[in-house]
Amino acid sequence: MRTFRLTLEYDGAGFEGWQRQPRDGCATVQGALERAFERVTGRTVRVVGSGRTDAGVHAEGQVASVELDASMSPERLQRALNGVLPRGVAVLELAPAPQGFDARRDARSKLYRYALWNGPVRSPLRAARTLHVERPLDLAALRAAAGHLVGRHDFASFQAAGSSVATSERTLLSLEVRGEAGARVDLLFEGSGFLRHMVRNLVGTLLEVGAGRRDAAEMPGLLAARSRALAGPTAPAHALTLLRVNYDSTADSAGSA
Amino acid sequence: MRTFRLTLEYDGAGFEGWQRQPRDGCATVQGALERAFERVTGRTVRVVGSGRTDAGVHAEGQVASVELDASMSPERLQRALNGVLPRGVAVLELAPAPQGFDARRDARSKLYRYALWNGPVRSPLRAARTLHVERPLDLAALRAAAGHLVGRHDFASFQAAGSSVATSERTLLSLEVRGEAGARVDLLFEGSGFLRHMVRNLVGTLLEVGAGRRDAAEMPGLLAARSRALAGPTAPAHALTLLRVNYDSTADSAGSA
Repeated sequence: MRTFRLTLEYDGAGFEGWQRQPRDGCATVQGALERAFERVTGRTVRVVGSGRTDAGVHAEGQVASVELDASMSPERLQRALNGVLPRGVAVLELAPAPQGFDARRDARSKLYRYALWNGPVRSPLRAARTLHVERPLDLAALRAAAGHLVGRHDFASFQAAGSSVATSERTLLSLEVRGEAGARVDLLFEGSGFLRHMVRNLVGTLLEVGAGRRDAAEMPGLLAARSRALAGPTAPAHALTLLRVNYDSTADSAGSA
Repeated sequence: MRTFRLTLEYDGAGFEGWQRQPRDGCATVQGALERAFERVTGRTVRVVGSGRTDAGVHAEGQVASVELDASMSPERLQRALNGVLPRGVAVLELAPAPQGFDARRDARSKLYRYALWNGPVRSPLRAARTLHVERPLDLAALRAAAGHLVGRHDFASFQAAGSSVATSERTLLSLEVRGEAGARVDLLFEGSGFLRHMVRNLVGTLLEVGAGRRDAAEMPGLLAARSRALAGPTAPAHALTLLRVNYDSTADSAGSA
């Protein structure tokens, strides 16, 4: 058995999210990849993603691992997979990884981008991948709120209702507000791990701050309250992209060997 | 009657091109605008575009003119139009123009961008608006060919077959190759006017040069031959965007007054 590491790009609009679904005819990224491996190698494989992305969420650099009993060269395997995969997903890189590499367990951090189009007129060419915000955003207030959110916190207030995880503590390594009010504004979230809908719930709350409807100084209290009902709405999925998954340098260097 | 100048953005994927079609149910940009004016003002108006864009071609800055017997302020008119237009088109600017301003007749030049994704792997997130070119493009050869095409020439070799215009002489003011091989490469065409399919036929020919299948030095002979059969294929529409239409500064300043 050989272990491979895959770097994937996909357009979330064409899929019902990452995770394979039991019912037939439901297009998922994981399902598409596993079917492609089966067509190309004749083997049934399990593709392990660094994490699930929700329906509609895009990826420029999702990472997955697979264990495979096949002799094909990585170059040929990558080309063959891209030849049979649906148009909405592509394998950008495929490289041998150290035995036992697991894209989910070994992930150290992930970087997400939430893209806003901030202007009085909606933009048809940007509509598929940005959220339109008409009123000028207060970027200073957004940055002040971001400063309160960075760090290790209990993010229960920003977790999808009904989630059941052992702990809702997570570390937000950075939250950068890039761009200019009245044009494109990107919110970049890097974290060691994210709860379900956590990025989109943070965005929904930050947009209230950027619109002046909520004060940045409320963030510590909001975290302490551990109540989903007090935070803002869940921002839509179509403006969210998983940009990159980071691994320890050993896995990294082996992955690109 | 007041004259207005409109700047328009549209996603060509949602329309059968600019020009209104006689048959019902055919979505065109001009048709959508004229219906929107009728809903908003109760008047039947004729929207004059700077030129037609083909089905699938996008615009970031198409310009149109209309004459209208209505008392609404430009701000209110723009907002009302954007409220009823289909999602694929938006009025970015709407301003009073000098009486008699005609977006088609008064246009001095147009700037088009043809976007290429040059890399071994297709890019799902770029697929809707770029043409994928797998092999590394020879940008020096592309630029050499571009140098032969700029200027006033008879572009009959690059005109859609079956076109009947008085003259196929046109002036290509500039043809810029921007970007880097192996990544995003943009071809920027500025001209005083373009024949039908001229940009896409030039792109199809330039891509043969960039792939090493045709020599840049053939361009003068290709122009002189005045034969569509000798030039390259028509590149697909989805990677072409009308970026800007230029007018004399008097019309410009009046338009933004």
